[in-house]
Amino acid sequence: MAKGKLYGIGVGPGDPELLTLKALRLLKECPVIGIPGKNPSESVAFNIAKGAYPEIERKQLLLLETPMTKDRDILDEGYEKAADQIIECLDQGKDVVVVTLGDTTVYSTYIYMQRNVAAKGYEVETVPGITSFCAVSAYLNDSLVDRDEMLHVIPASYQIDDALELSGTKVLMKAASKMPEVKKVIKEKNQKAIMMENCGMENQMVYTSVDDIPDSASYYSLTIIKER
Amino acid sequence: MAKGKLYGIGVGPGDPELLTLKALRLLKECPVIGIPGKNPSESVAFNIAKGAYPEIERKQLLLLETPMTKDRDILDEGYEKAADQIIECLDQGKDVVVVTLGDTTVYSTYIYMQRNVAAKGYEVETVPGITSFCAVSAYLNDSLVDRDEMLHVIPASYQIDDALELSGTKVLMKAASKMPEVKKVIKEKNQKAIMMENCGMENQMVYTSVDDIPDSASYYSLTIIKER
Repeated sequence: MAKGKLYGIGVGPGDPELLTLKALRLLKECPVIGIPGKNPSESVAFNIAKGAYPEIERKQLLLLETPMTKDRDILDEGYEKAADQIIECLDQGKDVVVVTLGDTTVYSTYIYMQRNVAAKGYEVETVPGITSFCAVSAYLNDSLVDRDEMLHVIPASYQIDDALELSGTKVLMKAASKMPEVKKVIKEKNQKAIMMENCGMENQMVYTSVDDIPDSASYYSLTIIKER
Repeated sequence: MAKGKLYGIGVGPGDPELLTLKALRLLKECPVIGIPGKNPSESVAFNIAKGAYPEIERKQLLLLETPMTKDRDILDEGYEKAADQIIECLDQGKDVVVVTLGDTTVYSTYIYMQRNVAAKGYEVETVPGITSFCAVSAYLNDSLVDRDEMLHVIPASYQIDDALELSGTKVLMKAASKMPEVKKVIKEKNQKAIMMENCGMENQMVYTSVDDIPDSASYYSLTIIKER
């Protein structure tokens, strides 16, 4: 029997209409839907995919639970285990499509599972999705970068101070826990910031002035700092 | 009569299946398709949209020709003229959707036309698209950025030397004319580079070693430099 193929799709940041035509086709065609987490209804990516394709619930749902830890060894073991779950389906000749919030190539954990699956000789394909930072700029009817500006996407683990010295547009990803510090540095540097929580979701919030940004932000927050 | 509304959609970098569901819906619903350039068949964005929706040719095609120059005043005048063409349709109660290669918020000239239209009180909406750098990484089944890496997107006008000093993944956009210099600096710094021309198009080419990258690259080229 021919082995199945693994697909990873980015479902975009929230609005189900931001799925690509290819992502929707794969959701329809693949018999198994891989969902990071332990409960489909708690998975933001699954709920977005369901918004675009309600029949998804009739498919075989494969829950890919990976540990919440910073310990690299435990994480790697978790991704290995998730890959084995996927491989079990592939060996039965079933194609598997794993849903990922936003884009598959930008800070996605999907890629670690996929690497393990590919290393064992299975066919894999990554399908890009709309990134949160493009969606936020589009929502604001503004460009993210213009003409000769550089774009810097910065994970929360970086020194905010240093990052804000970079020339061009800065996007701070998942900086929720550092929001008071982020606000302080933005003010000190007299920069212009926009913060968005839960882009494209029902509880979406936009703050267009530093003073309006709350000190405690949700996990799905994104701050864009543009040069004046 | 109610005024029409202006939409800008990103059609992604080449594969028509990377249009979003929303982009396709707007192409179907809007009576007027705005196309940057002077000839629909020469517009890459139009051809991608046509791949997803062949009936597009039966729509009213509005050619938005803007001057090829670096003179800001002449450019601004061109965008103003394009906005006036769009407004003429909006005043007739027709919705207009302008097609843009890649994403609407990343180095897109669409946004300048939209600003002029919005400034005159018309309703506008920007719809994001798949960026070329996400599509290239996905095509390579690799992540663009992992864990705590920063992402830097750098237009060709920058000093390549300085840009390659930044920590994390670097994306050089439209650096075709500087390719010999780019290759030299990458080799000097012993960095790992991947270059892709015409992502998702029929004449797509991928170079995974610096030595393979040709000195003269096409305009639609993208170089990704990852930390080893």
